[in-house]
Amino acid sequence: MDVPSTALFTDQYELTMLEAALKAGTADRRSVFEVFTRRLPEGRRYGVVAGTGRVLDAVENFRFDSGVLGFLRDRAIVDEATLQWLADYRFNGDIWGYPEGEVYFPGSPIMRVEGTFAECVLLETVILSILNHDSAVAAAASRMAVAAGGRRLVEMGARRTHELAAVAAARAAYVGGFSSTSDLAAGFRYGIPTVGTSAHAFTLLHDSERDAFRAQVATLGRGTTLLVDTYDVAEAVRTAVDVAGTQLGAVRIDSGDLLLMAHRVRQQLDELGATRTRIVVTSDLDEYAIASLAAAPVDAYGVGTQLVTGSGHPTCSMVYKLVARAQSTDPKAPLVPVAKKARGGKTSIGGRKWAARRVDEDGVAEAEVLGTGPVPAKLSGRQLVVELMKGGEVVAREPLDAARDRHIAARAGLPMSAIQLSRGEPVIPTEYV
Amino acid sequence: MDVPSTALFTDQYELTMLEAALKAGTADRRSVFEVFTRRLPEGRRYGVVAGTGRVLDAVENFRFDSGVLGFLRDRAIVDEATLQWLADYRFNGDIWGYPEGEVYFPGSPIMRVEGTFAECVLLETVILSILNHDSAVAAAASRMAVAAGGRRLVEMGARRTHELAAVAAARAAYVGGFSSTSDLAAGFRYGIPTVGTSAHAFTLLHDSERDAFRAQVATLGRGTTLLVDTYDVAEAVRTAVDVAGTQLGAVRIDSGDLLLMAHRVRQQLDELGATRTRIVVTSDLDEYAIASLAAAPVDAYGVGTQLVTGSGHPTCSMVYKLVARAQSTDPKAPLVPVAKKARGGKTSIGGRKWAARRVDEDGVAEAEVLGTGPVPAKLSGRQLVVELMKGGEVVAREPLDAARDRHIAARAGLPMSAIQLSRGEPVIPTEYV
Repeated sequence: MDVPSTALFTDQYELTMLEAALKAGTADRRSVFEVFTRRLPEGRRYGVVAGTGRVLDAVENFRFDSGVLGFLRDRAIVDEATLQWLADYRFNGDIWGYPEGEVYFPGSPIMRVEGTFAECVLLETVILSILNHDSAVAAAASRMAVAAGGRRLVEMGARRTHELAAVAAARAAYVGGFSSTSDLAAGFRYGIPTVGTSAHAFTLLHDSERDAFRAQVATLGRGTTLLVDTYDVAEAVRTAVDVAGTQLGAVRIDSGDLLLMAHRVRQQLDELGATRTRIVVTSDLDEYAIASLAAAPVDAYGVGTQLVTGSGHPTCSMVYKLVARAQSTDPKAPLVPVAKKARGGKTSIGGRKWAARRVDEDGVAEAEVLGTGPVPAKLSGRQLVVELMKGGEVVAREPLDAARDRHIAARAGLPMSAIQLSRGEPVIPTEYV
Repeated sequence: MDVPSTALFTDQYELTMLEAALKAGTADRRSVFEVFTRRLPEGRRYGVVAGTGRVLDAVENFRFDSGVLGFLRDRAIVDEATLQWLADYRFNGDIWGYPEGEVYFPGSPIMRVEGTFAECVLLETVILSILNHDSAVAAAASRMAVAAGGRRLVEMGARRTHELAAVAAARAAYVGGFSSTSDLAAGFRYGIPTVGTSAHAFTLLHDSERDAFRAQVATLGRGTTLLVDTYDVAEAVRTAVDVAGTQLGAVRIDSGDLLLMAHRVRQQLDELGATRTRIVVTSDLDEYAIASLAAAPVDAYGVGTQLVTGSGHPTCSMVYKLVARAQSTDPKAPLVPVAKKARGGKTSIGGRKWAARRVDEDGVAEAEVLGTGPVPAKLSGRQLVVELMKGGEVVAREPLDAARDRHIAARAGLPMSAIQLSRGEPVIPTEYV
C-alpha cells in the first residue's frame, strides 16, 4: 500500500520520444508542459482539482529500478543509451499548479511542469491518470455535498470500481466534502475515518432477524447501525428498538422508496421513544436523489456507484501539452511558445500561463483570467498557481484536511448559481488577456 | 507491481460482521455467496466476464500481516480475538464461476464462493471491485472489437483512468479483443504487447516538423508511425514520405473529421507511392465512431477514454449475496436457501445455482437457464460454471489468451443480433427452472 515505483505508469511513446530526442540532441531543451481541460463535463458549472498530493508522491517515486529496466531491455522498447539515462532518472524540475481542492474552469492551467523535455515528457501519463480520475470523483463529491447540506456523507463505492481506484476515490471524495469511507485501505493509506456495521448477509446468516440484531448489538454496542430492510422494515424497526433500546445509534435503509420509508421509519422510531436514533440511507444515491431527500428525516447518506464513477463523468479530459520550449539546449536560451495548429478542435494556446480569479466588488468570482505576459497589477493578489515542487523537491505537501477546507472556501467564493445541480454553463467565463 | 496483500480492499462492515458472528457462534456456518447482476447496463445485449484471474490472485494474497493488524488495532475496528483470527486467515474454501471471457446475462451466477461465513464474507469487496471494473471494460472492448471487424485495436486510455485501474483495463481490453496497449505497466504485469511512437509534443519540440520526423525515423526506423496532424495534414504526409520513403510504416491522425481525413490521406499516400503505409486513427473513438469508419481506409484504431470508462457504463452492478447457509456450525448440516425479501427491487433468489446455456438445433444460444435443483439431463453438457479454486488452491489458472479466445467463441455462439451496436434487450432471456 506504499507508493511503489510509478515509472511504468507510462505510455510507451514517452520512452520512444525520449530515445529519439536524446539521439537528435533536443532532449535537454528546457520545456514547459501544462495540464488543462478544454471544457468541463457537459452541464457542469465548476471543476474540482484533486489528486495533486498523489501526483507529488508519484513524481518523487518515479524511478527506473533494475526490474523495470530489464523489462524495457527484454522488450527492446528503447536502446542501451536510453536505458542508462533512465537508470539515473529522477525529476529535477519544477512543478506549479492549482492547490488541491481549488475549483477550475476550461483552460485553467491546473498543473505546470518545467524542466528539460526529457525529464518532463515521461510524466505525462501518470500525472493525467491521477488528476483525471481524482478530479472526476471530487467534482461529483462536491455536488453531493452541496445537495446534502450539512448532513453526513459516507463514501461506500469501493465495490463499484477498481480496488486501488477505490482508495484514491475515497481520498478525492474526502477532499470534495465526504466525511468518511467504508474502505479500510483508504483509512490505512490516507487516515480517512472509516465506518461500517453490517450487510444483509449478516441477518440472513442468523436464524432470525432478532438473533442477528442481538448478535450485532452484543458486539458493536447499542450505538451501532442496524440494517432494517432484509424482510419487513416496520417489523425490523420494532425488533431493533426492542433489542437495542431507545439508545440505538441508527438504522439503515438500503432499498425501496427512500423518501416514504424515511418518514415512516422516523415516525415509528419516535413513537417507540427512539427519538435520537438516526436514519442512514444508502440505495443508488446520486446528487439528485440526495437533494430530493432534503426535506426527509435523513441523518446521513451512503453513496457508492455514482460517486466513484463521477456521477456520469468518470474522467475529466485533462491533457498535458507542451506550451513552450527553448530553441536550443543552452539553459539560458529563451522559451518559445508552441502549440498544435491543425484544424479539428484540439488546438491550444502556447506559452507559460498565469491564472487569476477576478472578483467583483462583493468579492464574488466573476472570471477566470489567464495570460502569458506579465500579470496585471490588479490581479497579482488573486493568482491561483502555486509552487508545488522545486528542483525535484516537494515544497507544498499538506494534510488532506487542508485541501478539503480549501475546497469549501473556493466553492463559497463562486456565484450562487455554482451550487445549482441543474445543467448549465461554467459559472464564470474564462478570459485570455 | 506484484499483487500486494489485498486484505484491506475490504469494507469495514465485513470485519465488524466477522467479529459479531465469531461472538455469536455463527461464524463457522457453512455458507454460499454468489456474484450476479440483476440487469445488464441499459441497452446492452450481453455482458463479458473479466477479472476472474485477478480475483484468484487477490484471494490467494488476502492475508493480514502485522502492519494491517496494527492498523485495525489502533483504530479499534475489531477486538483482540478477531485480530488473532485474522492473523491466521487464509481462504480455504471453494470458488466456482463462469470462466473468464465467457458472456453473461441478468442473474448469471458469475462466481460462487463457498466456505464458512467468516472466510467468505471478507472477500465481498475485493471480488466485486475486480469483477465490476474489469467486466465493464471488457464489455466495451468486445463491442469495439465487433465494430472494428478484423482491424487492429490499440488500448491507450491509461491517462483517462486511475493509474492502476489502467493496468487492469488494458488486461480486460485484451480479453475483450484488443491486440495491444500503450501502457507499459500492463506489458510488464500481464505480458500484453505494448506500442507507441510519438506525440504532438515531439513535433513541437523540434524547429520544424521535418526535423521531428527525421529524428523519429533516425531512431525508430522507417517502419514507425508518424503523427501528421500537428500543423497541416497534407503537408505533413508529404514531409513524412519524403523523410521516411515509401516504406513508412504508418501515419496517425488524432483530430478532425476522421472519415474525410482517412480518405484524403490514403489517396495522398497512394499517389506518393506509399501504398503499404498504414493509417491509424485515435481521436475520442467509441464503438459507434469505429463502426462509422468501417468503409474508410483505416488500418487500426487507438481507443482511450471510452474504453477505460466502459463506453458509458464504467461499472456492472454486480452484487455478492449470501444465497444459502447451514443451520448450524456442524460441517454436515444441510444448506438452507436464504434471500432478502423486503420490497424495493433488490430481492434475489436463494439457493446455490447451476447455469447452462440452452442452444437451438443450429447450436445457437437461446436461453440462459438457471436452477437450484438437479441439472436437467439435456443441459448437463452445457453447464457454464467451472471450478476455479478448491480448498483454497487455485485450480484454473490460465494464460490471458485462453480467456481472449474463449470470449470470441462465446460471442460467436450467441444469436446474430448480439453484435448489433444499437440498444436492445439481452440477446437471450434468463430462465429459472
